[in-house]
Amino acid sequence: MHHLGSLFGPDITFLGVDRLDMRDPRADPDVVILGAPLDGGTTHRPGTRFGPAAIRQACYLPHNGVRRSLALGVDPLTELRVHDAGDVPCYSGDLASAVRRIETAVRLVAGLGAIPVVLGGDHTIALPDMRGVARHHGFGRIAMIHFDAHADTGDVEAGPLYGHGKPMRQLIECGAVRGDRFFQIGLRGYYPEPETLRWMADQGMRSYDMSEITARGLDACLTEVFTTAMRDCDGVYLSVDVDVVDPGHAPGTGTPEPGGLTSRQLLDAVRRVAYELPVVGAEVVEVSPPYDHAEITAYLGSRIVLETLSGIARRRRDATDGPWDPHTPLLERPVHLAPTR
Amino acid sequence: MHHLGSLFGPDITFLGVDRLDMRDPRADPDVVILGAPLDGGTTHRPGTRFGPAAIRQACYLPHNGVRRSLALGVDPLTELRVHDAGDVPCYSGDLASAVRRIETAVRLVAGLGAIPVVLGGDHTIALPDMRGVARHHGFGRIAMIHFDAHADTGDVEAGPLYGHGKPMRQLIECGAVRGDRFFQIGLRGYYPEPETLRWMADQGMRSYDMSEITARGLDACLTEVFTTAMRDCDGVYLSVDVDVVDPGHAPGTGTPEPGGLTSRQLLDAVRRVAYELPVVGAEVVEVSPPYDHAEITAYLGSRIVLETLSGIARRRRDATDGPWDPHTPLLERPVHLAPTR
Amino acid sequence: MHHLGSLFGPDITFLGVDRLDMRDPRADPDVVILGAPLDGGTTHRPGTRFGPAAIRQACYLPHNGVRRSLALGVDPLTELRVHDAGDVPCYSGDLASAVRRIETAVRLVAGLGAIPVVLGGDHTIALPDMRGVARHHGFGRIAMIHFDAHADTGDVEAGPLYGHGKPMRQLIECGAVRGDRFFQIGLRGYYPEPETLRWMADQGMRSYDMSEITARGLDACLTEVFTTAMRDCDGVYLSVDVDVVDPGHAPGTGTPEPGGLTSRQLLDAVRRVAYELPVVGAEVVEVSPPYDHAEITAYLGSRIVLETLSGIARRRRDATDGPWDPHTPLLERPVHLAPTR
Amino acid sequence: MHHLGSLFGPDITFLGVDRLDMRDPRADPDVVILGAPLDGGTTHRPGTRFGPAAIRQACYLPHNGVRRSLALGVDPLTELRVHDAGDVPCYSGDLASAVRRIETAVRLVAGLGAIPVVLGGDHTIALPDMRGVARHHGFGRIAMIHFDAHADTGDVEAGPLYGHGKPMRQLIECGAVRGDRFFQIGLRGYYPEPETLRWMADQGMRSYDMSEITARGLDACLTEVFTTAMRDCDGVYLSVDVDVVDPGHAPGTGTPEPGGLTSRQLLDAVRRVAYELPVVGAEVVEVSPPYDHAEITAYLGSRIVLETLSGIARRRRDATDGPWDPHTPLLERPVHLAPTR
Amino acid sequence: MHHLGSLFGPDITFLGVDRLDMRDPRADPDVVILGAPLDGGTTHRPGTRFGPAAIRQACYLPHNGVRRSLALGVDPLTELRVHDAGDVPCYSGDLASAVRRIETAVRLVAGLGAIPVVLGGDHTIALPDMRGVARHHGFGRIAMIHFDAHADTGDVEAGPLYGHGKPMRQLIECGAVRGDRFFQIGLRGYYPEPETLRWMADQGMRSYDMSEITARGLDACLTEVFTTAMRDCDGVYLSVDVDVVDPGHAPGTGTPEPGGLTSRQLLDAVRRVAYELPVVGAEVVEVSPPYDHAEITAYLGSRIVLETLSGIARRRRDATDGPWDPHTPLLERPVHLAPTR
Amino acid sequence: MHHLGSLFGPDITFLGVDRLDMRDPRADPDVVILGAPLDGGTTHRPGTRFGPAAIRQACYLPHNGVRRSLALGVDPLTELRVHDAGDVPCYSGDLASAVRRIETAVRLVAGLGAIPVVLGGDHTIALPDMRGVARHHGFGRIAMIHFDAHADTGDVEAGPLYGHGKPMRQLIECGAVRGDRFFQIGLRGYYPEPETLRWMADQGMRSYDMSEITARGLDACLTEVFTTAMRDCDGVYLSVDVDVVDPGHAPGTGTPEPGGLTSRQLLDAVRRVAYELPVVGAEVVEVSPPYDHAEITAYLGSRIVLETLSGIARRRRDATDGPWDPHTPLLERPVHLAPTR
Repeated sequence: MHHLGSLFGPDITFLGVDRLDMRDPRADPDVVILGAPLDGGTTHRPGTRFGPAAIRQACYLPHNGVRRSLALGVDPLTELRVHDAGDVPCYSGDLASAVRRIETAVRLVAGLGAIPVVLGGDHTIALPDMRGVARHHGFGRIAMIHFDAHADTGDVEAGPLYGHGKPMRQLIECGAVRGDRFFQIGLRGYYPEPETLRWMADQGMRSYDMSEITARGLDACLTEVFTTAMRDCDGVYLSVDVDVVDPGHAPGTGTPEPGGLTSRQLLDAVRRVAYELPVVGAEVVEVSPPYDHAEITAYLGSRIVLETLSGIARRRRDATDGPWDPHTPLLERPVHLAPTR
Repeated sequence: MHHLGSLFGPDITFLGVDRLDMRDPRADPDVVILGAPLDGGTTHRPGTRFGPAAIRQACYLPHNGVRRSLALGVDPLTELRVHDAGDVPCYSGDLASAVRRIETAVRLVAGLGAIPVVLGGDHTIALPDMRGVARHHGFGRIAMIHFDAHADTGDVEAGPLYGHGKPMRQLIECGAVRGDRFFQIGLRGYYPEPETLRWMADQGMRSYDMSEITARGLDACLTEVFTTAMRDCDGVYLSVDVDVVDPGHAPGTGTPEPGGLTSRQLLDAVRRVAYELPVVGAEVVEVSPPYDHAEITAYLGSRIVLETLSGIARRRRDATDGPWDPHTPLLERPVHLAPTR
Repeated sequence: MHHLGSLFGPDITFLGVDRLDMRDPRADPDVVILGAPLDGGTTHRPGTRFGPAAIRQACYLPHNGVRRSLALGVDPLTELRVHDAGDVPCYSGDLASAVRRIETAVRLVAGLGAIPVVLGGDHTIALPDMRGVARHHGFGRIAMIHFDAHADTGDVEAGPLYGHGKPMRQLIECGAVRGDRFFQIGLRGYYPEPETLRWMADQGMRSYDMSEITARGLDACLTEVFTTAMRDCDGVYLSVDVDVVDPGHAPGTGTPEPGGLTSRQLLDAVRRVAYELPVVGAEVVEVSPPYDHAEITAYLGSRIVLETLSGIARRRRDATDGPWDPHTPLLERPVHLAPTR
Repeated sequence: MHHLGSLFGPDITFLGVDRLDMRDPRADPDVVILGAPLDGGTTHRPGTRFGPAAIRQACYLPHNGVRRSLALGVDPLTELRVHDAGDVPCYSGDLASAVRRIETAVRLVAGLGAIPVVLGGDHTIALPDMRGVARHHGFGRIAMIHFDAHADTGDVEAGPLYGHGKPMRQLIECGAVRGDRFFQIGLRGYYPEPETLRWMADQGMRSYDMSEITARGLDACLTEVFTTAMRDCDGVYLSVDVDVVDPGHAPGTGTPEPGGLTSRQLLDAVRRVAYELPVVGAEVVEVSPPYDHAEITAYLGSRIVLETLSGIARRRRDATDGPWDPHTPLLERPVHLAPTR
Repeated sequence: MHHLGSLFGPDITFLGVDRLDMRDPRADPDVVILGAPLDGGTTHRPGTRFGPAAIRQACYLPHNGVRRSLALGVDPLTELRVHDAGDVPCYSGDLASAVRRIETAVRLVAGLGAIPVVLGGDHTIALPDMRGVARHHGFGRIAMIHFDAHADTGDVEAGPLYGHGKPMRQLIECGAVRGDRFFQIGLRGYYPEPETLRWMADQGMRSYDMSEITARGLDACLTEVFTTAMRDCDGVYLSVDVDVVDPGHAPGTGTPEPGGLTSRQLLDAVRRVAYELPVVGAEVVEVSPPYDHAEITAYLGSRIVLETLSGIARRRRDATDGPWDPHTPLLERPVHLAPTR
Repeated sequence: MHHLGSLFGPDITFLGVDRLDMRDPRADPDVVILGAPLDGGTTHRPGTRFGPAAIRQACYLPHNGVRRSLALGVDPLTELRVHDAGDVPCYSGDLASAVRRIETAVRLVAGLGAIPVVLGGDHTIALPDMRGVARHHGFGRIAMIHFDAHADTGDVEAGPLYGHGKPMRQLIECGAVRGDRFFQIGLRGYYPEPETLRWMADQGMRSYDMSEITARGLDACLTEVFTTAMRDCDGVYLSVDVDVVDPGHAPGTGTPEPGGLTSRQLLDAVRRVAYELPVVGAEVVEVSPPYDHAEITAYLGSRIVLETLSGIARRRRDATDGPWDPHTPLLERPVHLAPTR
């Protein structure tokens, strides 16, 4: 797998990190960015095919492959070897082949010992993304933490074979993820129907809807997730559908559901996941630029990626720097005195 | 009153519920949706005439008259007989006749024993909406719970006879609602002038502005309202001006006032009202599509209606299902095991 | 300095307050609004040159120079003598001369005994704004409270002489503000680099990033600031970059950084500053109309100004009205019974 | 009638011309601008209430009351005494009173010997605008040249009394304009119904639809109009509905009909009318800012006004400068050598 | 085939015409509208899945199934029996099955003796649309008149099997249309490559690019087409890609190419085709609402349909009314005196 | 001068052409693209700093450095050696240094024997662009053909030293271009003042305003220009301000003036210039993405560049292919049979 290039527009990398060229024997990435520019699986508003390009370039800082987290004091793009392999060739009109190609690419990345971070595209890609990771790490060995307004556990028998309404069921049914290690955060609205909820309960899934999150607090819910996520699992896959955030903060998406998390809540939650658990794969999906305004959803997608990577990088620093505590004043955090690059 | 049809664009119903045909002797609705496509009463940005059409169709799910609340486990559109009677013929250039027609239509609906849910339109319609309800239930017998950034209690003597700045004063002055059963939530900004505030105090109104809500918490304020709302009253009318929400979450409105509730807060509050109190009428007003982006305000309007209806439907389930508690994990809530339809 | 007129579009004043004509010997303003329609200092999206015009007219109420704060019960535009001096002639293509002119104008206003309130424009203007104030009140005598997503303490040696990424360093380096009386609130993201953070720490700056604010609460952080801000200082300068607010609430800005304060949080915080501390100057910057939607960012800019002025006006009322307490129900707050104008 | 002020937003004048103060005995205007900020008469998309404010300020040049036509070499704002009387108090919710007030204001202006130029507002205002002019100049003495995609001759008996679909019939029925001196240019689409067309034919109206204009050429049609317009008439009233232009050039309007004139065609046609015929009144209507993009429709509205005034001013120069001929190279046109102001 | 319903949003018909219910033995349509809400075949910007819904409702007149052409004096929706069969179930993620279903539906309609008018959807649908027609009328018996900026004759071997860049080649290769009866109008830009152009030349295609159209005039080109189109053919299929029009007039499309026809030119051309030739099928494709502004492209799509139907209806009137001539003044055209309905 | 990189966003090249690396001794470009991302010289709406990035990537075809003109049958990006040198480091807040750097870069490119094509940026850059060319080819030896709505000949003494309103005067005053070899096309509106017009006449400039262009036809005017442009000159510089086009076709610009050319007219005119005259330099300026919609102005900018380059490439083919004639049917043009690359 050499560099995949770009499907839409110029061939750029996430914030200017290096391209991944698999033919280079020196390539030894920690993290590999992959684009999955797909919207054939959307049931309503399309446009997520332009998500990867938008997330890669939504920034007011130079595209120089350098980003130091102010809060955490680490630069994930340089402390980790983060490379961008380009876009998996996806054709929205032929989901079946797109799913195959994405799964192959993700599995290859995982096989390199790297963490794949897939930029969607619609949530159809969760199936090949996570299954690709599971093919390397073992079916049932990776827990899923899934931020979303929607359960995405639609009946596989009904309707087309692939789509953004059913990957989570497909992942459990094929055994890639255990139902009782599948955690959903942010559900709300008027979906899915009772049969599906009963199927979810039968699998032992744990789904935190916004009414529970509001009543108990997001941090309490996350802490509860974290205490069980790693039992009999070796790692965590993080799937973030940007529509978990309220449409006010993320209008550029296909199936907006009012009443979601704030951007702040999501970024903090993503950081906690990446800092407190061993993430082995991640995806940011459902950013739809045609419905965005002033690029705010694309920026949010960019920051979800960066916050994830920053958490991972800071986790690796714990041995030398000790635990990170946001109660410490920013300018007194010891990590800020550590050398960079 | 047969089906009223559509004033703007194709003749559709709220998310596909059945049309109400008054000539059908079998018609026995629990809830009747009415459109009031009016913006002649706006003092600034118009566009609310397109509010009913936008709220009726803002959804990414099929327009099939089925919506099951994930949190509450009820489907308000099927557990309640929800019908849509179409748009009251309103002409923005002649408010006086529009007000007459709306009041007649609302009173007819209330007379059927149904709960009218009116889709505005600008807030001028609160006068005929609530007065129409009061004509059936009795003047002074229905409490008002009013979410809004603005008090809408402008002096009736000043300026034109009708408009979106004065219906609340008109309702109290005509006796439809008692001043001391009039609860306002979310006020802020630089309005109204002191004379009006003194008038409001004289009526015994209880107005929670955002500074009090922030200091005490919205839930505490609502609980306080609920303890007194039903004293000597037989029901509650719920008036939701979408501008109670921050402009970031609801840009599509005419008189945006920064610093409002989040969408999440409003949806939770509306649900509490509908679940904890006997709602006999409701309205969602001031959704202005020309100023919306990516339909997010229209979606919010849709969800305010659905959350209201879901609360009503869940309230009716209490006898069989027991009280609803968001602390129960979603997939363990007993109501999810109950049969639907 | 007579009235300066308008650089872009018709010559209007902030919400209709009187123009300031310096040649009028009766002029004795408490507050002077100045426009600094500049975007030559932006490093990314421009458009802030239209900020002053947008902030001046973003309101659905009449432009009559009257605005009574609902929460505080004061009308800052009439209780204070608030005048608008127009736009300082700024040319975005020649920042050096713009900076000179702004500093001159601000110093003149301060010399009149008035509080300058500058409408930006990009944050480059913090240098002439605050330094102009300091030239009157004394270098090192005024504390800085700075709301922003970004530290704006970029190295003065690097790149162009002026710009919106470095005014805070310039202010400290020139001695206008003491580093240990410089308080920053709302920082986040991936900026600045470690060398700059070390420089900031060396100056004794106190920077509250969003991770600390989330962990401790904004009110606790502000209270901490307030206990030290006035030590050895005679007043406070308030600098509000609208991008401290989340892009969902303030899309119309040049360098949006997801995960910010809500509009409600900022307005409450600004009110606290102006009510609890002696503000001697203020600025609202980085409102960029071309990237705004439905004017929501312009409205927010308008309300930041009004909330600041309302806090100042209410502070002056304490002697007669006693302290303001948001726990008091709105319609029982004594100030609402006081005469206006 | 003193200066009327502004209904929406700050009180500004058309491109900075002087306000008209009727109490000033020295006032002797040639042209008076009036705003009619009304949209209560729109049958579909509203927003024209913001038309006057948008047209008044849509310009990238200083608002200094000076505009010299490049093509014609005259400055209509200074060669004519052009004053702006502000907005007629119009309330969209009460068209009947708005129509009365507009007619009174226009008649007053005409009574001063000035040419009223009314900025709409929806086309409802053609009734009071033109009738106000006719009340001064005599019923049936002024020909009408009407640019529009729609005939606006709807049956007066049907529907509400006033609205933007019927003023042209009302004008003929009341006798203000003779049917055989009523010229329509630019009609197209699927309106009105045959009964109305027969009524129009019966009145002797001459309506040029786009199929005739395309087949014969706009200039030929105009020339034909000009040869008969002044027979037994003393002047011409010019009514320009911006939707006569194709929606690509004028998206900001309420009832867009594809296939219209280009902006260039309309501006040339308006100039010909004003240069070749004695215009005694004019209106520019149906500019709807909420549906505009990048202000292009507002700019077009502004230029329609300026082109009209420039034509009038150049017509007055014919005696001294001779006829204007666009075949003469721009820099050789003698008028460019004439003194200005 | 009963009524197909709606894929996105409420189930509406084109401007309110009757639904087609195939089970009704009285159904005898002249024209059947079909939606093909598909964008899986787009190579760049998607969104055409919302084209059918947008075209069906883009109108400011009532959705009453009545539209009388002003220019032609016929009402195509009532003089012809125009019915709407709803949306063919298309899933963008599985083009192969969508293509099959569309072809089946179109063939069924043609088999009824009706003219299918398909609302796209992306241009992929030309293959099943035209082939479905040809299956009824005979392969090679129907000429194609194709308005487009792009030739859409991409190599079938390259890339995916279906897509909007190749249907025209597929139609010729399968024999549905003869290459020498394939007329293209409006080509421009930088596509396709020379091999494809040579293939096109080899087929005997006649492609009028914008340079030829500008040099010779559109009417002359059309007349030339008309003289040969019907040789050895029995009818004409009309395919209109809205991007043949300049992006200024039709921004809501996926592959905009500057320098196109004006809306006026296209509407006149479409009318000529439908009036002068025997149209047996038609499609309007590539209207993409997410990229539209103020609905202007949707309106254009609506008018392309109406102009086509009006031409067909007027052609049927020739026997009684004589030929239509736009040089006749509108109000003197005899057809306006003919009875309607 | 090695590759200059990107000032805003990722470092990309015009449609994927190769970067220019000056250190490569094999570099021998025919055409060099330069970005001048500047808006400090705009007098009204900014945003042109994002023009170069937008023009470089506005295309729905692959960014592969290949574009074959359909009309002309040449691929300018491969038949000419077109390279992209990146963005000249411009800081909008310091125009003086930006002007110096641009002039140096352009002169260097001209010194390589290549044609510089500069992507603006505001029109301020015409001064360093054209003067840089003149420094190589000789002052007074290159004619200027200038498409614009505005003369841009503002008095150099007034206001700031640099800006987009005065470069054309500066070019003549410094002698870079002879006044009588300066041709302006498309002027209109209300600018400039008579003194400036007299200065222009004194220089012998030939300015075609829209009234002359409409009266005589654009092609006749161009032909007239072409007959004199090369007298005593060695080449032509082509300056295209996108606002020469009507705002309907090019909304994304800073100073829109209704009544301009159509996109089609401009593209044809640009092609004529490049095909019929020896172009030695070109610029496309005033594309302002923040004010654009659906990228249509950026696309137009892209096509202006391509049409220019295509004309140049086709001119070089004349010797072998003979003259190009648009009257020849597209598929019969001989050039389509010629080999590419």
